Amino acid sequence: MKILALDSSGLVAGVALVEDDILVAEYSTNYKKTHSQTLLPMLDALGKMVELDLHSIDVIAVAAGPGSFTGLRIGSATAKGLGLALGIPLAAIPTVDALAMNLYGSDKLICPIMDARRSQVYTGLYTFEKENGSYVLCEKLAQCALTVQQLAEKINAGGREVIFLGDGVSVYRKLLEETIRTPYSFAPANGNCQRAASVAVLGAAYAKAGRLVTAADFVPQYLRAPQAERERLGATEDEKERMKAGICVR
Amino acid sequence: MKILALDSSGLVAGVALVEDDILVAEYSTNYKKTHSQTLLPMLDALGKMVELDLHSIDVIAVAAGPGSFTGLRIGSATAKGLGLALGIPLAAIPTVDALAMNLYGSDKLICPIMDARRSQVYTGLYTFEKENGSYVLCEKLAQCALTVQQLAEKINAGGREVIFLGDGVSVYRKLLEETIRTPYSFAPANGNCQRAASVAVLGAAYAKAGRLVTAADFVPQYLRAPQAERERLGATEDEKERMKAGICVR
Repeated sequence: MKILALDSSGLVAGVALVEDDILVAEYSTNYKKTHSQTLLPMLDALGKMVELDLHSIDVIAVAAGPGSFTGLRIGSATAKGLGLALGIPLAAIPTVDALAMNLYGSDKLICPIMDARRSQVYTGLYTFEKENGSYVLCEKLAQCALTVQQLAEKINAGGREVIFLGDGVSVYRKLLEETIRTPYSFAPANGNCQRAASVAVLGAAYAKAGRLVTAADFVPQYLRAPQAERERLGATEDEKERMKAGICVR
Repeated sequence: MKILALDSSGLVAGVALVEDDILVAEYSTNYKKTHSQTLLPMLDALGKMVELDLHSIDVIAVAAGPGSFTGLRIGSATAKGLGLALGIPLAAIPTVDALAMNLYGSDKLICPIMDARRSQVYTGLYTFEKENGSYVLCEKLAQCALTVQQLAEKINAGGREVIFLGDGVSVYRKLLEETIRTPYSFAPANGNCQRAASVAVLGAAYAKAGRLVTAADFVPQYLRAPQAERERLGATEDEKERMKAGICVR
């Protein structure tokens, strides 16, 4: 089975091709360009490098959210477009699950954190449990938006050693160090950010389990309403009228 | 500190750029092209994607062997050339150590295996131990060439659960399953082959510890003599004469 994976949920733009447990190619960048400038050029370069026939792909695995709204839309639009054109299904991989998958086989609690702005992080808690001779990712706290304090309470209550990873670490490292009471560490650079290869590994598991969606049906999981939507809901009647008229109110 | 890492020791050709614990970019391929067709074009593409000024690099980390002789020469020549031109030092990272670094923070024994042909594997045994709040890679058996049976005896004697990774897994999986008596598993596609990002992470640790070499002094570690050398040493006087004359004797 050949899986093309895309992740543009956070600061990283990543593309990976996995065939039968072999990572054929992976290309990731974490740079100040927008994903619209990087994702498709990287897919194009990678495809040429490994002489990829797009029609040989069986499934497109995509980091389905949460994450940056614009990033998720770019990844989703790319995955949907490819899926529709090629007539193949998508595997919608929760972004935080894929991050946790970076740390295969660890006995610690795995805690990805992505900066969600507004003093929140997108996070989740995971362990690896052995099933039929392999470690599988187990969700202890499904991906959600929390404050760091709320997250710390959950980790401290469990008492288990934890490894943090994700782009939220650099933002909240000091606060984590002040609030976490269990032993902890931070993943190094080779495993601390989104990897399309991890999306692909979970994509293969989803495909095996038949957890696929059509390209037409796929929608990203934002977890929170976009800022514009939040502002619309929280706006006064006067502001709503002005919004309808296209006038920026904040 | 900005580290450019190269790995062309095995089937994978990989390039990565790490700056201050952030993976800025990584590009890996595991494809039937030779590394001379992939490594520099990948570096060129990655450099353009992240607008890399080569003069901003502090250290070049290179997978220094063991591995494919031709692959190591391509990686070494590239690293030496860049190091000499840019006037910067190299970090010579043992290939098997870098493979083990893929599985950060695991409590299991980590056993990378690379197919070394002639019924041998390049391998080593590693654990992660906590030091000053982070897990560091500890060598339990330094990288070496062994038969799978010799390796299995060492693992079975230790009795510790083990995770295998590396391109030798697909070649020797059945033999491992027949001979290993401790619990074991195999790393998934996102962590089972060489990653330049892992070379970079160890490169940063080497730089911090001052374990750098000049580009002029750097030589790859083959661990075994090249096939031509072995044949020369094992050849009869008659064969040696024919070799000198450029006649292939085997």
